[in-house]
Amino acid sequence: MATHAQDQERLSSNETRKLIAADKVEGTTVRNRAGEKLGSIDNVMIDKVTGKVAYAVMSFGGFLGIGDRYHALPWGMLKYDPKMESYVIDLDKEQLEGAPSYRKTDALDWDDPVWAKKVHEYYNVPPFWI
Amino acid sequence: MATHAQDQERLSSNETRKLIAADKVEGTTVRNRAGEKLGSIDNVMIDKVTGKVAYAVMSFGGFLGIGDRYHALPWGMLKYDPKMESYVIDLDKEQLEGAPSYRKTDALDWDDPVWAKKVHEYYNVPPFWI
Repeated sequence: MATHAQDQERLSSNETRKLIAADKVEGTTVRNRAGEKLGSIDNVMIDKVTGKVAYAVMSFGGFLGIGDRYHALPWGMLKYDPKMESYVIDLDKEQLEGAPSYRKTDALDWDDPVWAKKVHEYYNVPPFWI
Repeated sequence: MATHAQDQERLSSNETRKLIAADKVEGTTVRNRAGEKLGSIDNVMIDKVTGKVAYAVMSFGGFLGIGDRYHALPWGMLKYDPKMESYVIDLDKEQLEGAPSYRKTDALDWDDPVWAKKVHEYYNVPPFWI
């Protein structure tokens, strides 16, 4: 845990009202509306051309990274709840279990439009590329 | 340095033709067209509402983080050069020295439109918020 003094020192660089640093997003817990922990943000995927964040990658389960499952969450799904200090997504655990996921070693093709469409349809959010 | 095997393992999650992970952007060297090293990417600042990357923060100088200067580079400035394995920006060292910068401990207000305008005008790139 960062101390309060460290937080203060990092204030100028890490988050403001409008902007947030990718490395502050990473590590943040993700919960559903019931407050259940679904995972935590592992990474942020950026569209090179448009500069838009396409996905926040959430990991959960596993031990020391072994057996972890990853979910590509469309950025627009994440709402930050300052009280819970977590991103909150409207998804119960059963819905999450049925969601598209992958393991670190899977040869996932992020550029595959069929996969991307499936992910956005599952979570019912508009695609980032439009 | 990551080994080739580690790179392979991370391939599916770190970069594709269209997408790149924030944590792959971070740590990447920034050079000018003459190949001179200007610094390296320290962080990526995301606009919370639009989900667009506003700035890549480049650090240079200093020792163990002490005395480092930081430059907020508008995302659109960065072109990746696979041959140099670096981002290349069209800026000589003198231009960089005159550019808006800050130290980690400075109380920089990222949301200040006057500061943001100054940064974008200095580098002559269109603002991210339009």
